[in-house]
Amino acid sequence: MKEITDDTTCRYLFASDNTSGVHPVILKEIELVNRHHVLGYGEDKYTREALSLFKEQFGPDTEAFPVFTGTAANVLCLAAVMRSWNSVITASTAHLEQDECGAPEKFTGCKVLVVDTPDGKITVDLLEKHMYGFGFEHHSQPRVISVTQSTEMGTVYSPAELVKLADYAHSHGMYLHMDGARLANAAVALNLPFRAFTSDCGVDILSFGGTKNGMMYGEAVCFLRKGLSADFKYLRKQAMQLASKMRFISAQFIAFFRDDLWRECAAQANRMAGILADRIRSLEGIKITREVQSNGVFVIMPDKVAENVRKEWFFYTWNEKISEYRLMTGWDTREEDIEEFVKVLSRELQNKDNAV
Amino acid sequence: MKEITDDTTCRYLFASDNTSGVHPVILKEIELVNRHHVLGYGEDKYTREALSLFKEQFGPDTEAFPVFTGTAANVLCLAAVMRSWNSVITASTAHLEQDECGAPEKFTGCKVLVVDTPDGKITVDLLEKHMYGFGFEHHSQPRVISVTQSTEMGTVYSPAELVKLADYAHSHGMYLHMDGARLANAAVALNLPFRAFTSDCGVDILSFGGTKNGMMYGEAVCFLRKGLSADFKYLRKQAMQLASKMRFISAQFIAFFRDDLWRECAAQANRMAGILADRIRSLEGIKITREVQSNGVFVIMPDKVAENVRKEWFFYTWNEKISEYRLMTGWDTREEDIEEFVKVLSRELQNKDNAV
Amino acid sequence: MKEITDDTTCRYLFASDNTSGVHPVILKEIELVNRHHVLGYGEDKYTREALSLFKEQFGPDTEAFPVFTGTAANVLCLAAVMRSWNSVITASTAHLEQDECGAPEKFTGCKVLVVDTPDGKITVDLLEKHMYGFGFEHHSQPRVISVTQSTEMGTVYSPAELVKLADYAHSHGMYLHMDGARLANAAVALNLPFRAFTSDCGVDILSFGGTKNGMMYGEAVCFLRKGLSADFKYLRKQAMQLASKMRFISAQFIAFFRDDLWRECAAQANRMAGILADRIRSLEGIKITREVQSNGVFVIMPDKVAENVRKEWFFYTWNEKISEYRLMTGWDTREEDIEEFVKVLSRELQNKDNAV
Amino acid sequence: MKEITDDTTCRYLFASDNTSGVHPVILKEIELVNRHHVLGYGEDKYTREALSLFKEQFGPDTEAFPVFTGTAANVLCLAAVMRSWNSVITASTAHLEQDECGAPEKFTGCKVLVVDTPDGKITVDLLEKHMYGFGFEHHSQPRVISVTQSTEMGTVYSPAELVKLADYAHSHGMYLHMDGARLANAAVALNLPFRAFTSDCGVDILSFGGTKNGMMYGEAVCFLRKGLSADFKYLRKQAMQLASKMRFISAQFIAFFRDDLWRECAAQANRMAGILADRIRSLEGIKITREVQSNGVFVIMPDKVAENVRKEWFFYTWNEKISEYRLMTGWDTREEDIEEFVKVLSRELQNKDNAV
Repeated sequence: MKEITDDTTCRYLFASDNTSGVHPVILKEIELVNRHHVLGYGEDKYTREALSLFKEQFGPDTEAFPVFTGTAANVLCLAAVMRSWNSVITASTAHLEQDECGAPEKFTGCKVLVVDTPDGKITVDLLEKHMYGFGFEHHSQPRVISVTQSTEMGTVYSPAELVKLADYAHSHGMYLHMDGARLANAAVALNLPFRAFTSDCGVDILSFGGTKNGMMYGEAVCFLRKGLSADFKYLRKQAMQLASKMRFISAQFIAFFRDDLWRECAAQANRMAGILADRIRSLEGIKITREVQSNGVFVIMPDKVAENVRKEWFFYTWNEKISEYRLMTGWDTREEDIEEFVKVLSRELQNKDNAV
Repeated sequence: MKEITDDTTCRYLFASDNTSGVHPVILKEIELVNRHHVLGYGEDKYTREALSLFKEQFGPDTEAFPVFTGTAANVLCLAAVMRSWNSVITASTAHLEQDECGAPEKFTGCKVLVVDTPDGKITVDLLEKHMYGFGFEHHSQPRVISVTQSTEMGTVYSPAELVKLADYAHSHGMYLHMDGARLANAAVALNLPFRAFTSDCGVDILSFGGTKNGMMYGEAVCFLRKGLSADFKYLRKQAMQLASKMRFISAQFIAFFRDDLWRECAAQANRMAGILADRIRSLEGIKITREVQSNGVFVIMPDKVAENVRKEWFFYTWNEKISEYRLMTGWDTREEDIEEFVKVLSRELQNKDNAV
Repeated sequence: MKEITDDTTCRYLFASDNTSGVHPVILKEIELVNRHHVLGYGEDKYTREALSLFKEQFGPDTEAFPVFTGTAANVLCLAAVMRSWNSVITASTAHLEQDECGAPEKFTGCKVLVVDTPDGKITVDLLEKHMYGFGFEHHSQPRVISVTQSTEMGTVYSPAELVKLADYAHSHGMYLHMDGARLANAAVALNLPFRAFTSDCGVDILSFGGTKNGMMYGEAVCFLRKGLSADFKYLRKQAMQLASKMRFISAQFIAFFRDDLWRECAAQANRMAGILADRIRSLEGIKITREVQSNGVFVIMPDKVAENVRKEWFFYTWNEKISEYRLMTGWDTREEDIEEFVKVLSRELQNKDNAV
Repeated sequence: MKEITDDTTCRYLFASDNTSGVHPVILKEIELVNRHHVLGYGEDKYTREALSLFKEQFGPDTEAFPVFTGTAANVLCLAAVMRSWNSVITASTAHLEQDECGAPEKFTGCKVLVVDTPDGKITVDLLEKHMYGFGFEHHSQPRVISVTQSTEMGTVYSPAELVKLADYAHSHGMYLHMDGARLANAAVALNLPFRAFTSDCGVDILSFGGTKNGMMYGEAVCFLRKGLSADFKYLRKQAMQLASKMRFISAQFIAFFRDDLWRECAAQANRMAGILADRIRSLEGIKITREVQSNGVFVIMPDKVAENVRKEWFFYTWNEKISEYRLMTGWDTREEDIEEFVKVLSRELQNKDNAV
């Protein structure tokens, strides 16, 4: 999977939204909170401020717990409401199924059940095949439905779609979890405040992501409904996710939420993906395979073309069986990056040596 | 799922092969070994004898470890060769996916990946979709392919099919595990000795079942290839599967293997399934849905018919969405049981009140 | 630790109470329930009867769940009331600390905290050193106090001692667990019915043992207080402890409780331990090290003596550093066994070649 | 345990070495690496540089893996070489026993065995009581000896003491693990380069700490001996410890090692602890309880005094039963801080209202 290692001549902008650095405003905030001594482990005023900002964004019942990584946020969201005999139902493309090396199973002991989807979005119809065996001790008990917003394929759930899933979950005594590693990109795509498509739709637990949108590190486990966070502090500590100098995560969230910096960053990423898609759409020999709703563009192109392009501009293979590739944009992608990339891409698409 | 509780008027023969009791020869053997004092935890001559009988059946490299249940045998087979970052690929109908309440995930921390199959049997073609991400630390590493023999749907893998799976597994540095909860029924169906479709085909690890074929309790984790059982004794103990008075499991295996009692029992079960299928096939309004190769008969019939029949003869629903039901036969099923059952079944199929 | 393997010339009576076989009345009951078909997994009338007998013995709020081994009973009792961030406090000699290969930690993820005791019995004074850090997320939260009755050293808690521990536990929001692998021996020693020193004293959860007192296999997780057993059935299944043909465990419990067979068995074992102790006490060169309250006799003797005696009568070393050995008696130990054993022991004590 | 929450009037310098912020040189380095796009998850040149610096410090066989927290470093060091049936022996005061909320047990399933020590340092004599049961499947198998350097009580192991422990461990097929959350403070105390009291003494696995010595976040799992790190990358990912934008941890290590910044920081902390101890030693009514070898000063004083002092200068209780308190110094503690603190302390020691 690791297809190249970095060197000075290759560029990584489109490989992932985590190849970008830290937004200068966020870095500045880190410096600001560095000027004195505060207690560790979140017993500091910056963390208190950050947690209150989560309440502002997601509603007064919100309890947020900063952690280090998106995998940790997902695993701990699940661990908070599941016991080892439970199962979570998610899309087969979900990060928690594909990209966490089994961390959910390892930490919770639970079963992950998947459904194939056309676009990364699960629906009640799709997930119903796993809804049986309730009360039967031989069978893992379904407990959580997990969606990713925006999805790993760049698509976005509408509030109406989320309400349907939440209602369905709740009517079965289950919870709706949202992996929001790219929640800001979804907010921009939907042109809605965070709570309009999370708390207000019935999402119970949220993995809130900062790292892919301009932060250095830091995500948060957010309980959007009362009564779910009791004892969670022990779970976070036991999961090795309690930051010693937590103020430095909190400071990032403060800068992130202040003046809607998160929105500015995500808007830029989404806008760039739109432009990138537009520029690609006009090229011959390459095809966009997914609706471009947030900051990812998925394309099919000849493997030889991809191979040559990524000598200069690295990006990842998404599905090698169908020669599908993924191009991501970030908070700091610029139009001139796209121009330069498209120039190389065009050249290689026209290069006859790349014919299959 | 629990659709009825037992009382004196209902009969349970066809509900499962575990509704039968213990074969008298096995019970006799238990009495025989009860006559003096021996050390516990397998440090006794009966256990030594039983373990040597496994070597006789499966080859001299075989190391067998008695455990209590089929779930335990499966979980421990996997635990012996997997680390928490591994995955096992199996059929979506496999016992280890459907009927173990997540015990494999809980005990091993591993991911269970499934493939849908037409008949409970996986093939290289089917499982290939999970074969990627090797060496990529974000992805659970495929380590075991697990088959059930005979399958949960009563079908049986041929030696040639198993060789293909074993070769494929080994060529990818993986192991082939066999859930043999009904291995004896498969042996009878194939008319082969055990090792001809296990060790000789490249099966590496085997869950050997006794309980469904006339034993009181007792299964075995069998390592069919050298070098896999080191340290396993700790794993068995830690999994709460080390029997204190182990001689009573060992005695059962001794009786089971002696004079091929296992074959006699399984042959009767299989033969009865064949007869049951033949008798059903001639009835109107009911349809056999799976090839009857061992001791299970799967049928579709009107739900109302099923409901009424099982007031007298209980059996389980297999797939409620398509009104599919499962009828199992056991080592002590008799032709007269079938006659009586079919009489009731015929009556209800003809009962106009049962029309949908 | 395994100091000898069995052969025909050595006798194992005093090695452990699990070297005895099954009481004939229990074996008879197994045969009786073997005569027809019943549903598996406890959905049978024998299991219902057995569970109601537990209510008779321990009070109407009792919910009992048969499992296979004592280790499983302990682990599942703990798992039912603990979360992974909890700790259990027990004696350093406790089975769950010494003899379960880490099964409690593996299955629950919890921390086991121990206190050294003079006689295997913990007290509030002893355990208090672990009672701190409540509410502090860096520290495992104490949740259970676990006692063994009778203890691994043959001593017995009085009801008053248990009440103190239970009150202390409850006043700290904790539970009192009792490992009752030898509960019957304690009942005989105390000359009390079971509930007088369990439910009535405030014990919340009990591992009830049958195997060491005449059963073939089978223990039970008993919840003695309402509200603890919800969801437990999933935990038992996931722990690989749900018996397929459960009637055969249940039948044993039926015979065990009927006509107080358990008392008869334990009384014999205890009485024999008393006689054995009396006979040893009069010998020179050997010293009894623990109060003999149930069915174990602990002695110090020269290693050379022990070595020679156990060529004929095997027994286990308890503490090799002080040449302490353990002699256990069982439900079927006879006075003539003791006489023969003491004869050999006397001979070797007088044997000048055994002088250190 | 949380005895106060921060506000503007209280100072936290002496509460812990994690109340300090980030060293400006380290922060500067973070800014430097922020200027372009690099691949995530450690596939970047800064990480390669950082890892090579670990080899410089600890020897060419060293393989280092950055993680987020000290708890994670400890847990993953253990997980890399232990299986669930193993045990680790450590001091009862060790971080991994007291302050990780059971994370080692939860993640590894292993047993943690402790020994009481006079000064936080274990010796062969002390740990020998746990060295038995090898090969006995009922007993967790000892696999790792874990020391903390410098210890939680501010003491430091000499190279000779470590060699003894390493030799002992290796002669029993075990590993020596070092929790080096404050390794730099030990290096300064010993006036030795890192490897002289780690790799060169036979330490096999090391938790290397940066956070307590001027870094923002970031520790490292270091394998000091060849052959231990295979497959470790999966373990780190599954433990939710693989940093997405890893360059920002790596940059900190680069600055930390360059020009021996780590030594400068630790030297200041240690020197300040020495001065603090000297100043306290001359006061009446307060007693230093541990040898001051690194950056911690442990004192006994009247609770009333402590209570009043920490209204202005917060610090933690170490052992409330004997009124022992802990004062820590950090990389940025200044002599004037000590003067001001000692002034308040003196005042309260002389305050008659504080008499017990």
